[in-house]
Amino acid sequence: MADIQIIGVRGVGEVRPGDDPAALLLAAFTRQGERFEGGDVLVVTQKIVSKAEGRLVELAGIEPSETALELAAVSKRDPRQIEVALRESARIVRKDRGVLISETRHGFVCANAGVDASNLATPDVVALLPLDPDGSAEQIRRRIAEQAGVALAVIISDTFGRPWRTGQTNVAIGVAGLRPILDYRGQPDSAGLTLQVTEIAVADELAAAAELATGKLERVPAAVIRGYPYQPGDGRATELVRPAELDMFR
Amino acid sequence: MADIQIIGVRGVGEVRPGDDPAALLLAAFTRQGERFEGGDVLVVTQKIVSKAEGRLVELAGIEPSETALELAAVSKRDPRQIEVALRESARIVRKDRGVLISETRHGFVCANAGVDASNLATPDVVALLPLDPDGSAEQIRRRIAEQAGVALAVIISDTFGRPWRTGQTNVAIGVAGLRPILDYRGQPDSAGLTLQVTEIAVADELAAAAELATGKLERVPAAVIRGYPYQPGDGRATELVRPAELDMFR
Repeated sequence: MADIQIIGVRGVGEVRPGDDPAALLLAAFTRQGERFEGGDVLVVTQKIVSKAEGRLVELAGIEPSETALELAAVSKRDPRQIEVALRESARIVRKDRGVLISETRHGFVCANAGVDASNLATPDVVALLPLDPDGSAEQIRRRIAEQAGVALAVIISDTFGRPWRTGQTNVAIGVAGLRPILDYRGQPDSAGLTLQVTEIAVADELAAAAELATGKLERVPAAVIRGYPYQPGDGRATELVRPAELDMFR
Repeated sequence: MADIQIIGVRGVGEVRPGDDPAALLLAAFTRQGERFEGGDVLVVTQKIVSKAEGRLVELAGIEPSETALELAAVSKRDPRQIEVALRESARIVRKDRGVLISETRHGFVCANAGVDASNLATPDVVALLPLDPDGSAEQIRRRIAEQAGVALAVIISDTFGRPWRTGQTNVAIGVAGLRPILDYRGQPDSAGLTLQVTEIAVADELAAAAELATGKLERVPAAVIRGYPYQPGDGRATELVRPAELDMFR
């Protein structure tokens, strides 16, 4: 018997500004014969949240700066899109060989400040990260509680590259209803010694697990993880931002 | 219906040098009424592999260097354990405030070169990473094929910290039978545009997903992920090491 199940939420269709993602996900999940259960973790990919919140920018009105033009020349990308990414950056971590690594206003470090043109209905539009992904997660959580009477945890996920390792993985950029970090401090291991591994970023592991069902083609924009005994609580994904002074890995 | 199931492998008991992890996992899984199926991904936590391969060092015989003594003074850890970590490091990425971040001989960047004292039967012993985790994964895969007649993919996982983000997550340090990176290059998205996200480190996402079932207390040292349509192939976890010259995130 499975300890944990991952169930993709399909058939959500194109999401438009002003839509209620909770209602769309609830309707889609019901149509596929499923229902949310208490204790589920609903992982929602960022793009549909950004669309619903109208976090879309038309490139037609964007005047690229010198920096954007330089980066675009190397990367062969649209300088206006890079300009939007520059404007969304609280700090530029690195810009080199056409790649822009930014710290977002939330504190996340990722390529292009999370600005992305894929899976959008029109070609000359880019999507920005939600302004407050923890708030977005909380709103979806609250709306599902209201509409379905079920208390679940919600994670907003996005796909980030990382240092040292090739490829990208999904991580949590917003959480509601769960503690994003599982703290083993003080717990004994199998030999009765105190564990050396103390803090597991479970919200990122849940986001990564959900990606196995959602994939990258946006036909499955959310997944339910059932059976994982998360720690309920008033957590925020910003807890997953490692303060610079404690970051020995940089 | 679940797209993906995660099933922990329980009751493996203490693993000793010379043990066959495949036989132990097969017996334990059978005892819990399960059987391996073709297409399963078996994620095995590193510690039982290191134990089976005798990658254990008794601290009694270790003479700590000056560097180990300095790091131990700050971190209040056993200087002999730090000495072993230094000896396992191909390169020291950072040593500061008692923390040692190493590049291992495999190319992985992690704390203490993966040397760890938790979940070992005796207190004055530490475990090293397997010499060749891809080879370890391949051996488990081959032995399960021989003993159970089932072709599955195998991942050896370990728990690594990472830059920018708090907490640790499980990643793949060895793989066999699957492509660790899913390449979307050239595939169209929902709007018919080419996807900007191109390479997903699915082996790391599978390792992270498995951690939701295995946890950190070593009572569940492996998990089966069923239903994930991985790309079969002769992949190696060393593909997940990002070459320095391509690493814009560092």
